[in-house]
Amino acid sequence: MSVPERKISYKIPEPTLRRLPWYLSCAKLMRSQGERYVSSTHISRQINIDSSQVAKDLSYVAISGRTRVGYEVDSLIAVLEEFLGFNSMHKAFLFGVGSLGSALLQDTGLAHFGLEIVGAFDINPDKVGSVISGIPVYHTDKFSEIMQKDKVNIGILTVPISISQEITDVMISHGIKAIWNFTPFRIRVSENIVVQNTSLYAHLALMFNRLKDELKNEDL
Amino acid sequence: MSVPERKISYKIPEPTLRRLPWYLSCAKLMRSQGERYVSSTHISRQINIDSSQVAKDLSYVAISGRTRVGYEVDSLIAVLEEFLGFNSMHKAFLFGVGSLGSALLQDTGLAHFGLEIVGAFDINPDKVGSVISGIPVYHTDKFSEIMQKDKVNIGILTVPISISQEITDVMISHGIKAIWNFTPFRIRVSENIVVQNTSLYAHLALMFNRLKDELKNEDL
Repeated sequence: MSVPERKISYKIPEPTLRRLPWYLSCAKLMRSQGERYVSSTHISRQINIDSSQVAKDLSYVAISGRTRVGYEVDSLIAVLEEFLGFNSMHKAFLFGVGSLGSALLQDTGLAHFGLEIVGAFDINPDKVGSVISGIPVYHTDKFSEIMQKDKVNIGILTVPISISQEITDVMISHGIKAIWNFTPFRIRVSENIVVQNTSLYAHLALMFNRLKDELKNEDL
Repeated sequence: MSVPERKISYKIPEPTLRRLPWYLSCAKLMRSQGERYVSSTHISRQINIDSSQVAKDLSYVAISGRTRVGYEVDSLIAVLEEFLGFNSMHKAFLFGVGSLGSALLQDTGLAHFGLEIVGAFDINPDKVGSVISGIPVYHTDKFSEIMQKDKVNIGILTVPISISQEITDVMISHGIKAIWNFTPFRIRVSENIVVQNTSLYAHLALMFNRLKDELKNEDL
């Protein structure tokens, strides 16, 4: 017996949202090369995606290109950054200051893309009370209290799988609305909670498998 | 004009490969709770995926369950770890010891899933010559020389977008077969090269967008 999948229909299709950051980095690269205008054909050629697809994807972000010259690079970058949420700061709490959790606390790149981790939680006495890259580590018991002071919608999950579901439930019961799940565990949440799965291990498995196939092909 | 997408058909479908790590963590969790057998129905209930799908996915990994009792937990874990490549060590070089690159060098969790980073490359004189979590950082100019000594198939890309393609080409010309791309840039490679894209920023964009939609729904 399994609960049905989320049925909410979002405004922007996921494949489009996945491609938009590619267009953004392509536009940034072109700006750094001194270009002032960029067309969907140019983007298409650079990143190997059909140009009609590029144009269609970009139609979601309410920018219009000029015939022949295309989009103004600066405007395209500004509009995409705004649209993707990289321009406004989203506060987050991180749960589980292990190896991956500490690594994420130290990745200052996230702040440039709109994510500000304002606090971390763990139960390990060696970690509680410490400060990593300016981010305080609290005991998990303090979450309820700290959540009341700070308006935070996002929780980053980097705990061991044995407590992934438990910590998810704790986060949600205190008002977290979106969970960035780095654990290889598939967490269960109610329909109105956003889950973004980013399992590095699942990606590793995919890469290992494809690599094995390629190496076999080479040996033939 | 765009080059056609890769046409290679792999043996295991990507959605199956993405789900297998979920079954693995589910089985590990059940073992930690003292269970000796696990059925696809049980996994299905735990992680909210249709049980016939679970059974179908597991049929790829050549393990057979016993009627009524299901799979032996220890065997299922062993077979899945072997199948996913987590049991054998895959050597990798990392390019770009910035914020995210350093974070990955410090994530000891990767080694538990079969990835051993044996060297890192950068051009920043402050970084070249240093050792991070036991991993030496070399000047990028040394890559050719070091690649000849060590048999490495995997390259991890964490450089700025302005040099993503250039470094990709350098890696491939020296024999790298698979690229784990953490940059938001869509790199171009030939058909026989495996690319695994893991853009944290694309995932952030997805999460921000979904969260915005959910918060709007709440306000209605």
